Amino acid sequence: MNPMKELTVKVPAADAGGYRIEIGTGFLGSVWPKIESQFGAAGKFVITDTNVAKAGYLDKLVSGRNVPGYIIPPGEMSKNMNTLVLIIEAMENAYLARDTVVIALGGGVVGDIAGFAAAVFKRGVKVVQVPTTTLAQADSAIGGKTGVDSSLSKNAFGCFWHPSAVYIDVAMLKTLDDRQYRAGLVESVKHALIADEKYFGFLESNLDAILQRQSDVLEKVAYQNCRIKAQVVEADPTERNQRRMLNYGHTIGHAIESASGFELLHGEAVAIGIIAAGMIEIEMGLGDGKRLERIRKILVGLGMPVKKTANISKSALIDIIRRDKKAINQWPRFVLIDTIGHVHRTEGQWAVEVKQDVVENVLGKL
Amino acid sequence: MNPMKELTVKVPAADAGGYRIEIGTGFLGSVWPKIESQFGAAGKFVITDTNVAKAGYLDKLVSGRNVPGYIIPPGEMSKNMNTLVLIIEAMENAYLARDTVVIALGGGVVGDIAGFAAAVFKRGVKVVQVPTTTLAQADSAIGGKTGVDSSLSKNAFGCFWHPSAVYIDVAMLKTLDDRQYRAGLVESVKHALIADEKYFGFLESNLDAILQRQSDVLEKVAYQNCRIKAQVVEADPTERNQRRMLNYGHTIGHAIESASGFELLHGEAVAIGIIAAGMIEIEMGLGDGKRLERIRKILVGLGMPVKKTANISKSALIDIIRRDKKAINQWPRFVLIDTIGHVHRTEGQWAVEVKQDVVENVLGKL
Repeated sequence: MNPMKELTVKVPAADAGGYRIEIGTGFLGSVWPKIESQFGAAGKFVITDTNVAKAGYLDKLVSGRNVPGYIIPPGEMSKNMNTLVLIIEAMENAYLARDTVVIALGGGVVGDIAGFAAAVFKRGVKVVQVPTTTLAQADSAIGGKTGVDSSLSKNAFGCFWHPSAVYIDVAMLKTLDDRQYRAGLVESVKHALIADEKYFGFLESNLDAILQRQSDVLEKVAYQNCRIKAQVVEADPTERNQRRMLNYGHTIGHAIESASGFELLHGEAVAIGIIAAGMIEIEMGLGDGKRLERIRKILVGLGMPVKKTANISKSALIDIIRRDKKAINQWPRFVLIDTIGHVHRTEGQWAVEVKQDVVENVLGKL
Repeated sequence: MNPMKELTVKVPAADAGGYRIEIGTGFLGSVWPKIESQFGAAGKFVITDTNVAKAGYLDKLVSGRNVPGYIIPPGEMSKNMNTLVLIIEAMENAYLARDTVVIALGGGVVGDIAGFAAAVFKRGVKVVQVPTTTLAQADSAIGGKTGVDSSLSKNAFGCFWHPSAVYIDVAMLKTLDDRQYRAGLVESVKHALIADEKYFGFLESNLDAILQRQSDVLEKVAYQNCRIKAQVVEADPTERNQRRMLNYGHTIGHAIESASGFELLHGEAVAIGIIAAGMIEIEMGLGDGKRLERIRKILVGLGMPVKKTANISKSALIDIIRRDKKAINQWPRFVLIDTIGHVHRTEGQWAVEVKQDVVENVLGKL
């Protein structure tokens, strides 16, 4: 045998980048000129859902321009590979080039699938997020997580793919249906719980104004959410450690959402997941019943469920938790807080070990 | 209206990286220990096809270890989203974590789909390429292009996703069927044409030894291919400009491959595409009939077709070319050479303008 031949292929460093988030009320009609001034004549493709289109926001965004696009049925059930294939083939049929900008106008499902379509179309084109829901404006439009579900778990397929710009018009929240509106606010509560006690107090004392959808308060909420999320994402864009803190309440929350067959909205399931995290904290000596009561109160104030329904079995949840993206040896670490606004860390880890029997015990009481 | 609120999210720079390519004869049996020493206890998942498994290479690679994996039917027809979904769900059912290493054991289809699966599973895990064909060892296993086809075009879905290691054992070429073996050598001819006249001469004078599959010559061919491709990919990993030179013969070649319904192998279609490029060069005063004759001779020596069949219409080809990934305003630029070993550039561009009527004219004569 000859001696082995060896070569090394160098992969060059990628430059630092960044993107701007603009927050305001009633400026959707001026978003298209902003996109054109940033991206020029590049091809555009708009992805939205039938609810957003019916509410008139698609017309307001494109205002008479002839723009190719794809309108998906609303809801998590659209967030799969079949929809992705239909979107990509529509993009191909529009003869779009590699300089294309995909514009995601919608909630979390639209943003996640549009971001993923942009990530994989011709090996990657740009995406601009124009979130229309409390969930997307607080969370999913920022940070570059994209993906679709498999038949087994949420976001089984996906990429990290940062948007090139984000436009948050809180005026679009006025027409959001009440259940979705409320559920999406759970991510704001989560941000406060993991990063900012003062913001938690702001949410508590402005709950009525938030539920009345007062623009000035909604802009402040959007700004705080973006500020907190941006800080975390900048420190750890691909979730090696610190970014995991954004999963507070989500490990059990995702499992409940899947196990409910998506009858529960993401935020509703995460609300239950946040309560579960609080119960784990108590079991582990990191929190007390009084703090959990305060958290439960704001979630109930938002109209969230705080207990799982009886038809969701403990064993189904445990099986889904074992498949969690963050699992190592079939068991994930959990994000816990030690005070409101501060994530509990052990040995520099933002997600910590919790034994399976502790989780099973909590699920039994949930 | 309140003044707009603005934030900027910073995306940190990504460090430079790299990966090693090892080339040898008959070392497949020692590849697994090499992978284990590089990646430790991380979960492994092997993707291969039934032909490779039947030839005994899967057994040789894993040698009795119990490794989860997925075996796809051979051929371009497997390279689609349905297969990707089956692979990802098999990975989920193996409860694989984010530290997973996907091992691609096979030809171009296996490598492209396994690389894409790695790119999107849980938003990205590592992939090791163990190419088994002349095509994959010369080209597709190196450089980080991954993807699957849509019903409309090749690699419509995909990511740039660099392998973490590449192991090229030319002994596996001994059992490759003759048609595939020969077609895969067209990428070697392409590398010589765009980058190295001396290498072109080497291929001409060693054609018999290559067709007899002599290991020492095959190792040299593999080394030259990797050297040339690595240089190009390092200079331009995401194909903004220089990397386009690797598409020599591929714009028309891809169209012919698609239009044939994949009855032509990739290399066979690219051989015709290389002839077409040579004819365009003559039309544009960049080459003469003598040079094209020399190129035609080596392709015919490999047993390649050098004319399109009559059932492939010019209009079908033009339509596919308009959808090309590299097209801007529905017409791509073309890579041309001015001498063997040297790509023609205008104004620093490695792919240049060719008018549609020139291409139509050439397709008419092809």
